[in-house]
Amino acid sequence: MSQFKHPPLGIPVDSAKRWTENYQLATQESGRLFLMAGDQKVEHLNDDFVGGQVAADDADPEHLFRIASAAPVGCFAAQMGLISHYGMDYPEVPYLLKLNSKTHLVKTAQRDPASLQWQSMAQVYDFVRHSGLKIVGVGYTIYPGSLYEPEMLSEAARIIQDAHAMGLLAVIWAYPRGQAVGNKEQDPHMIAGASGLVACLGADFAKVNPPLDAQGNMDARLLGEAVAAAGRTQVICAGGSETDSKSFLQRLSEQMHIGGTQGCATGRNVHQRSQPDAIRFCQAIHALVVNNQSVEEAVKFLGENH
Amino acid sequence: MSQFKHPPLGIPVDSAKRWTENYQLATQESGRLFLMAGDQKVEHLNDDFVGGQVAADDADPEHLFRIASAAPVGCFAAQMGLISHYGMDYPEVPYLLKLNSKTHLVKTAQRDPASLQWQSMAQVYDFVRHSGLKIVGVGYTIYPGSLYEPEMLSEAARIIQDAHAMGLLAVIWAYPRGQAVGNKEQDPHMIAGASGLVACLGADFAKVNPPLDAQGNMDARLLGEAVAAAGRTQVICAGGSETDSKSFLQRLSEQMHIGGTQGCATGRNVHQRSQPDAIRFCQAIHALVVNNQSVEEAVKFLGENH
Amino acid sequence: MSQFKHPPLGIPVDSAKRWTENYQLATQESGRLFLMAGDQKVEHLNDDFVGGQVAADDADPEHLFRIASAAPVGCFAAQMGLISHYGMDYPEVPYLLKLNSKTHLVKTAQRDPASLQWQSMAQVYDFVRHSGLKIVGVGYTIYPGSLYEPEMLSEAARIIQDAHAMGLLAVIWAYPRGQAVGNKEQDPHMIAGASGLVACLGADFAKVNPPLDAQGNMDARLLGEAVAAAGRTQVICAGGSETDSKSFLQRLSEQMHIGGTQGCATGRNVHQRSQPDAIRFCQAIHALVVNNQSVEEAVKFLGENH
Amino acid sequence: MSQFKHPPLGIPVDSAKRWTENYQLATQESGRLFLMAGDQKVEHLNDDFVGGQVAADDADPEHLFRIASAAPVGCFAAQMGLISHYGMDYPEVPYLLKLNSKTHLVKTAQRDPASLQWQSMAQVYDFVRHSGLKIVGVGYTIYPGSLYEPEMLSEAARIIQDAHAMGLLAVIWAYPRGQAVGNKEQDPHMIAGASGLVACLGADFAKVNPPLDAQGNMDARLLGEAVAAAGRTQVICAGGSETDSKSFLQRLSEQMHIGGTQGCATGRNVHQRSQPDAIRFCQAIHALVVNNQSVEEAVKFLGENH
Amino acid sequence: MSQFKHPPLGIPVDSAKRWTENYQLATQESGRLFLMAGDQKVEHLNDDFVGGQVAADDADPEHLFRIASAAPVGCFAAQMGLISHYGMDYPEVPYLLKLNSKTHLVKTAQRDPASLQWQSMAQVYDFVRHSGLKIVGVGYTIYPGSLYEPEMLSEAARIIQDAHAMGLLAVIWAYPRGQAVGNKEQDPHMIAGASGLVACLGADFAKVNPPLDAQGNMDARLLGEAVAAAGRTQVICAGGSETDSKSFLQRLSEQMHIGGTQGCATGRNVHQRSQPDAIRFCQAIHALVVNNQSVEEAVKFLGENH
Repeated sequence: MSQFKHPPLGIPVDSAKRWTENYQLATQESGRLFLMAGDQKVEHLNDDFVGGQVAADDADPEHLFRIASAAPVGCFAAQMGLISHYGMDYPEVPYLLKLNSKTHLVKTAQRDPASLQWQSMAQVYDFVRHSGLKIVGVGYTIYPGSLYEPEMLSEAARIIQDAHAMGLLAVIWAYPRGQAVGNKEQDPHMIAGASGLVACLGADFAKVNPPLDAQGNMDARLLGEAVAAAGRTQVICAGGSETDSKSFLQRLSEQMHIGGTQGCATGRNVHQRSQPDAIRFCQAIHALVVNNQSVEEAVKFLGENH
Repeated sequence: MSQFKHPPLGIPVDSAKRWTENYQLATQESGRLFLMAGDQKVEHLNDDFVGGQVAADDADPEHLFRIASAAPVGCFAAQMGLISHYGMDYPEVPYLLKLNSKTHLVKTAQRDPASLQWQSMAQVYDFVRHSGLKIVGVGYTIYPGSLYEPEMLSEAARIIQDAHAMGLLAVIWAYPRGQAVGNKEQDPHMIAGASGLVACLGADFAKVNPPLDAQGNMDARLLGEAVAAAGRTQVICAGGSETDSKSFLQRLSEQMHIGGTQGCATGRNVHQRSQPDAIRFCQAIHALVVNNQSVEEAVKFLGENH
Repeated sequence: MSQFKHPPLGIPVDSAKRWTENYQLATQESGRLFLMAGDQKVEHLNDDFVGGQVAADDADPEHLFRIASAAPVGCFAAQMGLISHYGMDYPEVPYLLKLNSKTHLVKTAQRDPASLQWQSMAQVYDFVRHSGLKIVGVGYTIYPGSLYEPEMLSEAARIIQDAHAMGLLAVIWAYPRGQAVGNKEQDPHMIAGASGLVACLGADFAKVNPPLDAQGNMDARLLGEAVAAAGRTQVICAGGSETDSKSFLQRLSEQMHIGGTQGCATGRNVHQRSQPDAIRFCQAIHALVVNNQSVEEAVKFLGENH
Repeated sequence: MSQFKHPPLGIPVDSAKRWTENYQLATQESGRLFLMAGDQKVEHLNDDFVGGQVAADDADPEHLFRIASAAPVGCFAAQMGLISHYGMDYPEVPYLLKLNSKTHLVKTAQRDPASLQWQSMAQVYDFVRHSGLKIVGVGYTIYPGSLYEPEMLSEAARIIQDAHAMGLLAVIWAYPRGQAVGNKEQDPHMIAGASGLVACLGADFAKVNPPLDAQGNMDARLLGEAVAAAGRTQVICAGGSETDSKSFLQRLSEQMHIGGTQGCATGRNVHQRSQPDAIRFCQAIHALVVNNQSVEEAVKFLGENH
Repeated sequence: MSQFKHPPLGIPVDSAKRWTENYQLATQESGRLFLMAGDQKVEHLNDDFVGGQVAADDADPEHLFRIASAAPVGCFAAQMGLISHYGMDYPEVPYLLKLNSKTHLVKTAQRDPASLQWQSMAQVYDFVRHSGLKIVGVGYTIYPGSLYEPEMLSEAARIIQDAHAMGLLAVIWAYPRGQAVGNKEQDPHMIAGASGLVACLGADFAKVNPPLDAQGNMDARLLGEAVAAAGRTQVICAGGSETDSKSFLQRLSEQMHIGGTQGCATGRNVHQRSQPDAIRFCQAIHALVVNNQSVEEAVKFLGENH
């Protein structure tokens, strides 16, 4: 994997330069992306932030910013509205503006998923200009196979092109879902299809769920088809269900080294920990993703109580 | 709770200054908001304004303006159209423009709730400029869990950003509702989810219904999760069903001091009283919310016949 | 009822001046409006214009213009397209542009009523500027309780605000209708709700159907709640089903003097008569509405054959 | 019928002048319109152009242009896209741009008819400006009674107003259709309703189907109500089902002289003939419509083999 | 077939000049188009790119670009987003931007097909201007007979007109499909209808599926009706199901020489081969289409292992 990457074609020279700066910033000059996902307060409402093993810190959204500013994340993805209330106190964080989100209240059994763009790109432009923050890119979720796929693909394509024209990265969360998809949401071939679709939309990164084999087990080798299909669009993968820290890191390492992904998108596995634990966990991920260290080296960041 | 609050990020300097002025005006420099809600003439048609214990004064919409101008409210929320016919005679009132409203004719059992933006933000801008009124902000209602959630979240996000860019506050009325929500509309965890969602939209205040426990009773402690989830977005709460004045004030006090809310949104409990009673009741609320006085002190404003 | 009325707030000074001129023209300096409704060629297709007791004159749409130009109507409401073909020959008529209309072919039993804006407000602006006609205002119909209520309320609110910004009056035809309304379309409390809703939209006049009591009978006293709810938005009422001329005038007089309405909207009762009869009938209405004369005085205009 | 006609009101002076020139061109200074309809390649796909008695010439769309350029038609109505490929070779034809069309694949039994605007009016403006063709007007089809009526009435009203503002004529094809219309599509009173509706939209011509009596027979007298209802909007009528040439001309003559229509819209009856026959047939129609000649005189144009 | 072709009418002179240059480039000055279709990564997700007889090369989207740059294709059609990531390395390829695509997840049995425009034409304009690539045109798919036909015809008409105004070619993929079409998707008369429809939209090329006779067999003679109906819009045809190379070429030759098509659109038959085989296969197609050579001559390009 080369650490140099061409900016997308078809944008002004200045924008291409800015895109490259943002790419280098977000990938920490490694070509790999450690995306800290913090959009679940809409997607899952408050379910991820309280109860069970969740650290008490997580009840307050500022917890996300405290982690993002202290930990070596490539970018912190959250809704623009949330960032507008905390960014002034955490100006050092590279932000990714998540431009659509929906709640999980309406289940797929009731209706196929639909998630529409929130802020207009003119508002994004103004926000970038006036906030003074390090906005490295934008994010958008699509649900291939949903009856609302046409509207979401159209919004995604326009957002990506506008983002590039502003010099911003574009990351697409691609989750096949809906009556037509049924229980194939994490089928390796389906995930590969979604990855190729994201490449055709022109995004820089495709965030996909980890593919499962016929028995429902994760296996990093199943990622190969998706990574190939995505071509120059880099694939990053969620860590999957909660597990112990070392297993998580082991799996992430295999996703990258066996599966060929180029980073990770991690949300709950980070912010459900207390602030110190979360920061240590991010340091371990950073070691793997950005510094290309081994799992053994990464684990050392966790301290004794991992 | 600090009385100083940062304006939202991502807007021009002048707008940030105007936002701070509006925040100070609306919170009466207390950091807490006493919002007098007067949008029910659409939401409930004429049901709240005539009959039963409702004072005869309330049949005429001017009653709302008479109260708002004579009583120490932080802002009076009503539709822009109504304000355009009375504002010239009540220029001293701080107004909040409620930008969407629907009638209660179509029940949730018939269709999930949908409420769309009325005036465009360009029209809001012109109104602010030409009316000479003290417009402190805008309001918008969302129904998380409704099948129309995507359209409403998109409108809300754009309205909030545009309002901030004009230096106006943004208040979101957030009511989970629809087939997917069922009878969980006032579940504490659901209310917390709605509050966190409003924070992600970037609003300054989230107006939520008071959460109920499993037996359907209000308890100020149940507000804690919502207030935490909202982070820097301040939570204000409706007073709940009608009760005697002192109980109302007691409950409001507990919402603030135990639950952590930072103000209240009161409609029927104010305007269904005669003008003098309504003004006295507002003075009592103001004592609690803005002057941070005790319930006992607040009750004194009610006079003998509360 | 004062004959002076403030223009709506929030518009440029010039527009306010023009609004006042239009208000004086339409109300003939009486503060009351005699609106001649001529939009039924869409709403009822040709049903109202031929057959039965309908005068032969009425088959030709020019009949409407002949009446409107010869009779003392406050304004003649019709679709802009129709006016564009006759206005050059009837330049003295004060016109009100009815901006939406639907046919009655799709019944409520098949689908809830939906009626969308025809010409854009930019087109209205150009028409006012280029036609040289006395355009005093615009009209729009809403169906509260319809599943399409959100779209119509949004269009209505924007039209009203834009009309005011051009110095034009805004009249809303408000008819509760749809599955959710059922047989309560003319329930007094429902009519009051619709009137209050129109006030919140910011219209200058609300045209409502006459409320009926539980036995289905009209009674002017039932209008009181609606007139109160409308506040500074003036209520005008349709005359109801056809009846003899004197009874019609008696009912209109009671609507104004007992019910508190401030004018009338009359269509079929005018244009289904021959031209001379229609003009005489308009003179009688004008006597009641504008000159505040008694029913006995008004009846004299009808001549012998009423 | 006067040969002079006022341009519609509410447009700039230059546009009114251009409108008059286009009206004179399209009506060949007769005040009557012979519209050659060539939009069926979308409406009926290839059904009208091959098979049965259809001349082999008709398989090629250029056939339409060959006829239109050699025959004395008032205007040739076709989609702008088709004209863009042939107009350079047939610059002498007066064209009418048909702005919406749908296929007949989805039958009314499956869903009510919906036909949306194709090119924007800005694109029409550019086409008129850059093509150098004699574009005399635009056309648009509405289906009163369809569930999609609101969208089509809104598009029609805006198109008509914009067309007039460019100095173009506006012709509306008005076909009541849909579940609510049932088998009344050609009921005389329904046709009259549609004609009056078109007048309210402001079109210059209404193209309607010939009304049928209760037994399903055409009778020119049945057109009277529609012609009256349309007022200054001129009614033109399709020739009905195929029949022998002389009967066709006889029927057309009766439509004009008994029914009061002011022209005709003829498609299949023209283009399904060979080029020479089609031209002769157009000459006969022209004799009737434009030169006001008798059926006997018109028939002479057909030659021996009619 | 003339090798000179008029640019479409109604566009500025400069655009007409640029259109002609693009037409000459895409048809390689032959008047015939060899379109290499590479939009299946969305339309069929990853199904066409892995498994079975598919060459391993095809797993990586760059395979498409490697072929397109080394083989004598007239244009390579792909989504703009994909081109934005590879174009810098393959600047010599003539590109056609496919502007809409949908996945095949939602089957027609679940819902009629809908595919909406991705990038706006302003974004296309910017891409052409900034990319420096040889963009020869745009493509768009319509599904005549689908319930979403009105939206797609409207988008197609506007895209075609805008493309022409930029000097770009417009190619429409026209596939009758939906409940109303049933099993007539490849009926010769239906294909002819679709071709005529594309002509009315104004496209330069119509890409249709090969018509089948009543027994489901291909026969080049069945194309005649479609080619005639399309008029000056040139028809290109897919090669049909996979078969051996020589049969494919034989069929393509017959489509052109018997059926009258003017080129081909080939996707899977090209890219599912290894790079050297794919290039050889393209050379054979080029010999047939562009150089008008015989099947025997074309076959020679395949080498021994065809």
